[in-house]
Amino acid sequence: MAVVIRRDQRVDSKVIESLGGFGVATAHEAQGRIGLMASYMRPIYSGASIAGSAVTVSLPPADNWMIHVAVEQCRDGDVLVVAPTSPCDCGYFGDLLATSLRARGVRGLIIEAGVRDVRTLTEMRFPVWSRHVSAQGTVKATLGDVNLPLACAGAVVDPGDVILADDDGVCVVRQRDAAQVLKACEAREAKEAAVRKRLAAGELGLDVYQMREALAAKGLAYRDSED
Amino acid sequence: MAVVIRRDQRVDSKVIESLGGFGVATAHEAQGRIGLMASYMRPIYSGASIAGSAVTVSLPPADNWMIHVAVEQCRDGDVLVVAPTSPCDCGYFGDLLATSLRARGVRGLIIEAGVRDVRTLTEMRFPVWSRHVSAQGTVKATLGDVNLPLACAGAVVDPGDVILADDDGVCVVRQRDAAQVLKACEAREAKEAAVRKRLAAGELGLDVYQMREALAAKGLAYRDSED
Amino acid sequence: MAVVIRRDQRVDSKVIESLGGFGVATAHEAQGRIGLMASYMRPIYSGASIAGSAVTVSLPPADNWMIHVAVEQCRDGDVLVVAPTSPCDCGYFGDLLATSLRARGVRGLIIEAGVRDVRTLTEMRFPVWSRHVSAQGTVKATLGDVNLPLACAGAVVDPGDVILADDDGVCVVRQRDAAQVLKACEAREAKEAAVRKRLAAGELGLDVYQMREALAAKGLAYRDSED
Amino acid sequence: MAVVIRRDQRVDSKVIESLGGFGVATAHEAQGRIGLMASYMRPIYSGASIAGSAVTVSLPPADNWMIHVAVEQCRDGDVLVVAPTSPCDCGYFGDLLATSLRARGVRGLIIEAGVRDVRTLTEMRFPVWSRHVSAQGTVKATLGDVNLPLACAGAVVDPGDVILADDDGVCVVRQRDAAQVLKACEAREAKEAAVRKRLAAGELGLDVYQMREALAAKGLAYRDSED
Amino acid sequence: MAVVIRRDQRVDSKVIESLGGFGVATAHEAQGRIGLMASYMRPIYSGASIAGSAVTVSLPPADNWMIHVAVEQCRDGDVLVVAPTSPCDCGYFGDLLATSLRARGVRGLIIEAGVRDVRTLTEMRFPVWSRHVSAQGTVKATLGDVNLPLACAGAVVDPGDVILADDDGVCVVRQRDAAQVLKACEAREAKEAAVRKRLAAGELGLDVYQMREALAAKGLAYRDSED
Amino acid sequence: MAVVIRRDQRVDSKVIESLGGFGVATAHEAQGRIGLMASYMRPIYSGASIAGSAVTVSLPPADNWMIHVAVEQCRDGDVLVVAPTSPCDCGYFGDLLATSLRARGVRGLIIEAGVRDVRTLTEMRFPVWSRHVSAQGTVKATLGDVNLPLACAGAVVDPGDVILADDDGVCVVRQRDAAQVLKACEAREAKEAAVRKRLAAGELGLDVYQMREALAAKGLAYRDSED
Repeated sequence: MAVVIRRDQRVDSKVIESLGGFGVATAHEAQGRIGLMASYMRPIYSGASIAGSAVTVSLPPADNWMIHVAVEQCRDGDVLVVAPTSPCDCGYFGDLLATSLRARGVRGLIIEAGVRDVRTLTEMRFPVWSRHVSAQGTVKATLGDVNLPLACAGAVVDPGDVILADDDGVCVVRQRDAAQVLKACEAREAKEAAVRKRLAAGELGLDVYQMREALAAKGLAYRDSED
Repeated sequence: MAVVIRRDQRVDSKVIESLGGFGVATAHEAQGRIGLMASYMRPIYSGASIAGSAVTVSLPPADNWMIHVAVEQCRDGDVLVVAPTSPCDCGYFGDLLATSLRARGVRGLIIEAGVRDVRTLTEMRFPVWSRHVSAQGTVKATLGDVNLPLACAGAVVDPGDVILADDDGVCVVRQRDAAQVLKACEAREAKEAAVRKRLAAGELGLDVYQMREALAAKGLAYRDSED
Repeated sequence: MAVVIRRDQRVDSKVIESLGGFGVATAHEAQGRIGLMASYMRPIYSGASIAGSAVTVSLPPADNWMIHVAVEQCRDGDVLVVAPTSPCDCGYFGDLLATSLRARGVRGLIIEAGVRDVRTLTEMRFPVWSRHVSAQGTVKATLGDVNLPLACAGAVVDPGDVILADDDGVCVVRQRDAAQVLKACEAREAKEAAVRKRLAAGELGLDVYQMREALAAKGLAYRDSED
Repeated sequence: MAVVIRRDQRVDSKVIESLGGFGVATAHEAQGRIGLMASYMRPIYSGASIAGSAVTVSLPPADNWMIHVAVEQCRDGDVLVVAPTSPCDCGYFGDLLATSLRARGVRGLIIEAGVRDVRTLTEMRFPVWSRHVSAQGTVKATLGDVNLPLACAGAVVDPGDVILADDDGVCVVRQRDAAQVLKACEAREAKEAAVRKRLAAGELGLDVYQMREALAAKGLAYRDSED
Repeated sequence: MAVVIRRDQRVDSKVIESLGGFGVATAHEAQGRIGLMASYMRPIYSGASIAGSAVTVSLPPADNWMIHVAVEQCRDGDVLVVAPTSPCDCGYFGDLLATSLRARGVRGLIIEAGVRDVRTLTEMRFPVWSRHVSAQGTVKATLGDVNLPLACAGAVVDPGDVILADDDGVCVVRQRDAAQVLKACEAREAKEAAVRKRLAAGELGLDVYQMREALAAKGLAYRDSED
Repeated sequence: MAVVIRRDQRVDSKVIESLGGFGVATAHEAQGRIGLMASYMRPIYSGASIAGSAVTVSLPPADNWMIHVAVEQCRDGDVLVVAPTSPCDCGYFGDLLATSLRARGVRGLIIEAGVRDVRTLTEMRFPVWSRHVSAQGTVKATLGDVNLPLACAGAVVDPGDVILADDDGVCVVRQRDAAQVLKACEAREAKEAAVRKRLAAGELGLDVYQMREALAAKGLAYRDSED
């Protein structure tokens, strides 16, 4: 029942790029605190920040054959999203596959498993967010699926969804919501800039956000220490 | 029953600063191998080293309201110590709260939960030791306590205890023991400097520490390999 | 029944050095995907890469006495491999022991437990692969064994086995297999260089590795998206 | 953007019941080794085995409000599937909610979080597969979604998918595949019965499955021990 | 600096017993969702339910000497609460210590570490809530503290606090709050009984708790499926 | 390089049986607190207790082919010990393989991976100690080794070593040490019986083991509470 879905549709690349400029924390908040992958998904090096259109790969534990199949479905601006059907820390991906993806313009890899050759990948500046780093090799024996909906690190990913990834983790923005989330990001950031300035000047969040009344209504009490 | 305790008392800032100079490993040993937080508490960037007076915050899972309350209780030289009442990897803290704490002279954050905006925090050089990095947002709906005794990452923290944190982790020195632990640190470091010199010169620890007799008494045997 | 085995035999240092040049991922693949330690064994700083002859230490939880004993058994080019008899995250090893090992020419430490003084170790460029970083001190009360076969992080290590460690993890090459694995590494790397060039030029792995026929035989189907 | 989708459609109850008769391991194999939830999903008591139609609930960490909303969408033969938007071990569910679900004919609960009142649930024989057992209470402050596609314990669940759960874990059969998977289960079980009889009589799997030739072709060698 | 504090004071045994009747989940809720130990604290057999006055033991990793010291401080109705100063899964406690505690009327053991002889403990019906089950033995070499405040499994425990433990986990009720929490338990249970009856009769929680208006105010939308 | 070693030699079955009578905790202590597998190795049902001669299997992640090969090497009184070359929670083993092993007189299975069909295995009373329970299927594509030394759950196992397993976990007794460990078990149990009687009569361990002097020498202080 293994299948590869060929897809042409992508979210407008300007929308994707603009979402990338806001980053994971802002986009996640702007879309109502959904779509975040689990916090065990960590970048192999600090400072990378990407945005792209998801190509999804579901594959068996300890078998990376379908990544080779998926490369052909990738194009400029895509992000490869890979999850095994059961937990596995094997090193599914290394510098050869990164070379191949880079040649196709792929922005990076999200994999709920292991990755290897991390020093070379770092030197190439090919960013990867993974659950594990491991040299353990994989086989090429069993099929899986490319471009079907996927559960990766606790998030549902549909092919074509926008993937954002930076030092805070990985966030999925649904294809149909991308334009609206972008607007919400802009609104949020405008508001935060004003708040940041007031906090830096020494105002308290209690006052900036006008929390004192609500806290008192909930019954918060203040007492002096007897020390 | 939520309460905020206002506290003026702090350990002498010179004692705190001196303890900070010795670092976590030395202070932990000097006070009898107690007071260390769990090893999953890691710095968001390498090389930071702080010492300060604890302001404690106990709050519900996925709700960071009380951090805003606690900011007001912080003053120059403090360290904020935060623990949820049940395990939670949400990103309770980001660059806005860091801006606010910095404006009050706070040295850093210890949080047994998640933190976000880690790239900005790193650029600000605002140090955080946390259990997780996660963009997952929190709500502001339920009260907790500020400046009550707290269990954070396996250690009891009383408000006003001295918090030391560096690349080796986080250590709590009880307020009443601070001066005495400082003396023990000085004694330990003096002794270690002499040992380091002898070891660097090629002497064996077996001889420097005079262990051979005790090992033999326990029955340690030596045999040549038959390879 | 505690024992220290004195061993003279080492694998030819040129073979060890050459294996080190290939690194963990290549050697692991070259010897048939065996001998890799668990992926939780991580370097305390990035970029280190070592190869050496194993001196093994089995010791009790929270007791590092036998590391002091083992130092005497180490010589230039060795790697110390330490595992407790039950899981323990204590900081068994710090800058004093590193100073001592360095004086004997030891290349690095592999420890399925905790390490401390990581900032100093990093400044010394003394590389350590460990499961934990922790300042928690250990006692010197109970014996263990030096240079007996050991299970460390999921791998069997015999004294004298070749240990390779880099940013991808830690791999054990059996003493008797070292020369043969070296040859297999050379063959593998030659093959990979040619493939890398083709992939960088935009050829697909599907074609380079001639996978299309086998995938079709397994029943892989292609469909266009209905989006 | 929170939404509750009202759904009438269910897979034919006879198909669901028959699938339940085969159990998780058989159905999972019969559909090509996909659809299994993570192995940390464990039953609160042994021996329960259920099959039903999924009603899905996505909700925030530490907030169970949407479970109350979801109850109304359940009917006889359903299974409630709940996952928080970030990892949480709180006790979202206890004997009161179980009483309510039982009154509506619900077969059981699948929750990638915590459950409490497990002794009462066990006495009621209301089966739950959960990641945690915890008394930690939750709030009712923030909305989520009912009957949208969901990632639960590593599996994508669409509302109306068939959920199988027993002592081996939890498996999802896609609504559209249910009838076909049922046939594959029947075929598999017939084949296994014959094999079981031969193995019980002492025949080796090597012979029953005719593996010897393939093993030899791969290069498997046999040697006598030198012990 | 190791110390044993001798304590006579206990909470009224009738209050303790009554709290025990309500169990962990109810008491935890009644006192405002605080005081719960981490969900990894599990009973070694199902169905046990205890309440008692805490005797606390802080001890080193892999060393159970102080448990022997603590036994003398226990009396009828107590619960022993043990936590190591760093994480350890060793089997600190077995049937001999249980025999000794039983002879003194101790109700059970709470230990954030390992326990062994679990089959014998189960036959004795001596209840233990632990983080691990392990036969790994411990030494008797290093001191710790008895009856000082303790962090056990994420909760602060003061000596004399009331410990409740059942199949839902372990909860700490502060000594000074015990009488008040008991009243809150009674109020909560009365309310729940009425609700349970209505839910069992098929009323929805949405109506029983009058949630519909608040949900609508938050913006919850209902839509029919297009399936 | 995959190989199957054929072995005839077993430890005297009376010695094995007698060791089994003492159980894991006693044997582990009697041989100096070594040889215990990690505490995550748990029985699929309570109350089983086995002893037997190890047949070892090293195999790839997600591939159980070599278990079929190993069955042929098993005989009456053996215990199968299985570990993957990298961590894997797949269900390598189910009721068909158990049927086959039972037909050969095998006492049980130790597997550092997953097992499935646990309900049927429980009904058959075929005992398994595993790291996971999972229905996830495995492939039969890659070779491994039978009867080579193995690292399983942190312990080195040589083929022919004696495996003990009960509710406290799994312990390995080296083939060459079996007779001596048996004697040590007998001595230990005799001593413990006397102690148990004294403790049950209310004597304190402090007195039975004569610990008071050593504790005082270490500096243990007693103080009365100021409560």
